[in-house]
Amino acid sequence: MSANPYIKQYLMTAGPTPLPPAVSGVMAEPIAYHRAPAFIEVHASALARLREVFQTRNEVLSFASSGSGALESAVANLARPGEPVAVASAGKFGERWAELCSAYGAELTHLDLEWGEAIAPGELERTLAGMERPPRAVFVTQSETSTGVVHDVRALTEVAHGHDAVICVDAVSGLGAVDLPQDEWEVDVVVAGSQKSLMCPPGLAFASVNERALALAAESGGEGSGRYYFDWARTAEGQAEDPPNSPFTPAVTLWRALDVALGLILEEGLPTVFERHGLLARAARAGVEAIGLERFGPDDDDANVVTAASLPDGVDGAAVPKLMRDRYGVTAAGGQGRLKGKIVRIAHCGYFGAFDIVIALTALEAALGDLGAEVEPGAAAGAAQRAFAQAGRAPEPVA
Amino acid sequence: MSANPYIKQYLMTAGPTPLPPAVSGVMAEPIAYHRAPAFIEVHASALARLREVFQTRNEVLSFASSGSGALESAVANLARPGEPVAVASAGKFGERWAELCSAYGAELTHLDLEWGEAIAPGELERTLAGMERPPRAVFVTQSETSTGVVHDVRALTEVAHGHDAVICVDAVSGLGAVDLPQDEWEVDVVVAGSQKSLMCPPGLAFASVNERALALAAESGGEGSGRYYFDWARTAEGQAEDPPNSPFTPAVTLWRALDVALGLILEEGLPTVFERHGLLARAARAGVEAIGLERFGPDDDDANVVTAASLPDGVDGAAVPKLMRDRYGVTAAGGQGRLKGKIVRIAHCGYFGAFDIVIALTALEAALGDLGAEVEPGAAAGAAQRAFAQAGRAPEPVA
Repeated sequence: MSANPYIKQYLMTAGPTPLPPAVSGVMAEPIAYHRAPAFIEVHASALARLREVFQTRNEVLSFASSGSGALESAVANLARPGEPVAVASAGKFGERWAELCSAYGAELTHLDLEWGEAIAPGELERTLAGMERPPRAVFVTQSETSTGVVHDVRALTEVAHGHDAVICVDAVSGLGAVDLPQDEWEVDVVVAGSQKSLMCPPGLAFASVNERALALAAESGGEGSGRYYFDWARTAEGQAEDPPNSPFTPAVTLWRALDVALGLILEEGLPTVFERHGLLARAARAGVEAIGLERFGPDDDDANVVTAASLPDGVDGAAVPKLMRDRYGVTAAGGQGRLKGKIVRIAHCGYFGAFDIVIALTALEAALGDLGAEVEPGAAAGAAQRAFAQAGRAPEPVA
Repeated sequence: MSANPYIKQYLMTAGPTPLPPAVSGVMAEPIAYHRAPAFIEVHASALARLREVFQTRNEVLSFASSGSGALESAVANLARPGEPVAVASAGKFGERWAELCSAYGAELTHLDLEWGEAIAPGELERTLAGMERPPRAVFVTQSETSTGVVHDVRALTEVAHGHDAVICVDAVSGLGAVDLPQDEWEVDVVVAGSQKSLMCPPGLAFASVNERALALAAESGGEGSGRYYFDWARTAEGQAEDPPNSPFTPAVTLWRALDVALGLILEEGLPTVFERHGLLARAARAGVEAIGLERFGPDDDDANVVTAASLPDGVDGAAVPKLMRDRYGVTAAGGQGRLKGKIVRIAHCGYFGAFDIVIALTALEAALGDLGAEVEPGAAAGAAQRAFAQAGRAPEPVA
C-alpha cells in the first residue's frame, strides 16, 4: 500500500515537528535583506529569546546548518588532534559525537552503552578516572532521539567538572521540552537545532558556549586551525556587534520563523512548557501500556521528548509506522540503525497537545490491529484521557 | 532619517534576492517529515533540476548552510596542510577562498588583485608557473558580488588544467544568471547558494563535484581528516541512495522552495534566463551612465549579476543606499570592505524584470538629487527603456 497524500496528514515525528500556523505563515511574507532594519530587529529579538530559552547569559552562537553542524562546531573548536576527549553514548546521536571526535583526530575514550540505556553518572566517573590523561572535553546527549531516553545532564556535568573537563551537551531534540538551566547547572556548551522542540523548520543550529569553553577554543583558531564556518570566535565576534551581525548570510526566512516560535514558547512560559511535555509523555506511556506494548528504555527517566515502544515479536516491525502513515495519515518514526523494525517512536516535542497523543496512539493501536495483534480499540485513547484527567488539564501549546 | 517599513518595499540586493510568490507561498504549507514520500519526491525532483541548472551529470552535493559552507567544503575536501594551492581573487568573496585555505593550513599562493579588476588568464598562468610545487587546486570566483565583475571561468579553467590542478569556482551569485556549462567546460567544482540567482531564501548551498575532484578528495577522509558535516563522500553516499538521502536533516522548507524556483527557471529556459540577465545588465549600465555615474569595473566583462556604480566625490557615499531605502523603500547595497561609501550596487540576479531596473535606477537618481548631485529626473529610466526597446522586449521572468 503506497502513501496516500490526499488524506489528512498528522506529523508525529521528533524533527521536523509540526509548526504553529503563525510560524508557517511568516515564512510566506516577502523576504528581507539581512542588513536591513526589518531583519536586524528580528535577528536581535530572536537572539534575545534564545538566551531565555537556553536559560543563559551566553550569546547563543547561531549557524545556518542542521543540528549536526552545531555538534561539529563543538568538536572542531574543542577537540585537538592527539589530545584526549571522552564521549558517553547510548544511541545513534550519541555515537555521532564519537564519529566527530574521530574525524577530528582526537584521542577518544568512548563509554559506548547499549542503545536504550541511561548513562549512569557513576559509570562516566569510572570511565574518566580510568583515562591516562584527563580529557579536554566530555561529550554527551540530553535527549537521545533514537531511543527516547533523557540523560541526567546535571549529574553528568558534575562528573565532567570533577575531572576538570568542559562538558558539551547535545540538546538538539530536548531543548525547550526538558528543563536544562544551563547557567545554573554550569553546563559549558549546549547545542540545539531549530526543528524539534523549538517548533521551527530545520536549517538553524545553535551552540551556547560559556566563557570557559570559549577560552579553551581560543587555544587554537586562525591559520591552520581547520575551521572557518563553524569557528566559534568568528561567529561570536559578529554577534557581539551592535546590532548583532552574522559572518555569513543568515537564513533570514528561518530566523523570522524562529522569532515567532520562540515568542510562543516564552508566552506559554518555560515551566508550563516543560510541564506540558511531561504530561504528554505520561499520557503516551499510559497509552502504549494500554495497547499491551512495553515502553523501550529505563523506567525512571525523564523521557518527555519521544516515547519509544517495543514492538511485539509476532509483528512486522517495519510495517507499523508504514501502515500508520499510509492508511491513517499519521507519520511517526520507527527505529533507526540497530533498532530498525524493533520499536516505534511517538514524538511529543514542540507544538504538541493532548489530541496529538490521542491521534498517535489510536493510529498505532489500529495499525497493530490491522497487522493481527490483539488490541482493544479505544484502550490507548482511554488511558491517555485518564492521564490528562488525573492531571486536571488537557495540555495545549500556545497557538 | 530612520527606515520606514510602512512604505512599499523593493528588494534590489544580490542575496537575499526577491522571491517569486509561488516560492514564498509553498513555505507556508504544512511541514513534511524528511523521510516521508511527499518530501522524498520534492528532494529527488529538486536534485534533478539542480543538475540541469548546473549543466552537469554530477550529483550536486547539497548542504544546509550558507554559500560559504559549500565554499568551505571545497577547501576542506581538497586542500591539505602544507600542500600547495592557489587562489586568484579581486574582491571580498575571492578573498574568502584565501582565508579558507589559510584556515586549513594549505601552502597558499595568492594572486591578490585590486578589487574591481578582472582576473586575466595570463596573469593566473604566470602565477601558477611561478609556484615551486604545482597546486593541488586553484580557487576562483565567477561573479564577484562585491564588485560586480564576472571573471572568465572558461579561460581560467584552461589555465588551471594546464598545470594539472583541479579548479573550484565560486558561482554563488552567478549560477543561473551567467552561463557556466560545467561539463562542457570541464570545470571540476562549482559552488552555489540558494539565495541569489536561484530565487530562493538563504540556507541551502551546493557543490557540484566531478569524478576527478572526488578522487582527489578521497585521498584524505575518515579518521583524522578534520571534516564531517562538509565531507563530500558522506553526502555523495547519501545522495547516491535510491531515493536520494541526506546524511543530516535537510532544511525541508527550503527544499520545497528550491524545487518550485528551479521549476520556474527551467520553464523560462536557461538560454532565455541568461539573455534576460544580460539585457537587465545593459539597461542598468545605460541608466547608471545616464545619471552621470561611472560604472565600477572593467568595460568589457560579462557583469550580468550586479551593476556597480562609482559614486561622485562630492557625495556622501554611505548616504546613498541609506536614502534609497529609508525614503524610497528601495533596498540596494553599498560597497563592502574597502569599497564602503565608494560604490552602490544594483542587483539583477534572479527574479528581476524590466521594471525592477527602472525602480532601482530611479531611486538612485532621486537619492543623488536629494544629496545635491546634479541629476536630470527621468534620465536613467529613459536610458533603461531605450535599452529594452532596442532589444525588442521587456525582459520578465516566469512567475
